[in-house]
Amino acid sequence: MAAQRTFDGHGMLDALDDVIHQKVRLGIMSSLMATGGADFTFLKQALGVSDGNLATHLAVLEEAGYIEQRKDWVGRKSRTRCIPTEGGRAAFAAYLAALEALVKG
Amino acid sequence: MAAQRTFDGHGMLDALDDVIHQKVRLGIMSSLMATGGADFTFLKQALGVSDGNLATHLAVLEEAGYIEQRKDWVGRKSRTRCIPTEGGRAAFAAYLAALEALVKG
Repeated sequence: MAAQRTFDGHGMLDALDDVIHQKVRLGIMSSLMATGGADFTFLKQALGVSDGNLATHLAVLEEAGYIEQRKDWVGRKSRTRCIPTEGGRAAFAAYLAALEALVKG
Repeated sequence: MAAQRTFDGHGMLDALDDVIHQKVRLGIMSSLMATGGADFTFLKQALGVSDGNLATHLAVLEEAGYIEQRKDWVGRKSRTRCIPTEGGRAAFAAYLAALEALVKG
């Protein structure tokens, strides 16, 4: 079956980084790549997720070294700003390449 | 912050079809789109998954109406052939469009 030989997905699933593939985290990383950095409230509204859900997924991304969370101050109010790291940018690029290889056979 | 206005992920996460986004099912659908149809053994080897895992995810895709599983015979041996439906092809195309919109901001 020649047609079947055109697809070899073995290893391609492993190449899809689970840290990034999860939907909310994919949304976060996409947002941070598009904007260069965003604060918690912006991400929450942009992605339509709860505080707790967003905080959980930001923690996973930070733990993986893909983002940094920096607290800064706007007047007297603090805000948490999320910035993609160099490692996070590289991981996102690798994820997109793996995804493209998979979905385009 | 003008840069932040360039990304609006709200609804984009919902647009990513959960039936297809799961990694093994994404692998199955990608394979079936690339090959036009594949048998159980081929999918198992191509994706590097167990019988049980593959069967579970094929059942989800069949339940969603995205694939059909047809048993046919090669000599005296039966094999299960998986074919994407028209609905499955449309859902896969919609998934890719939603994914592209998300990851490209």
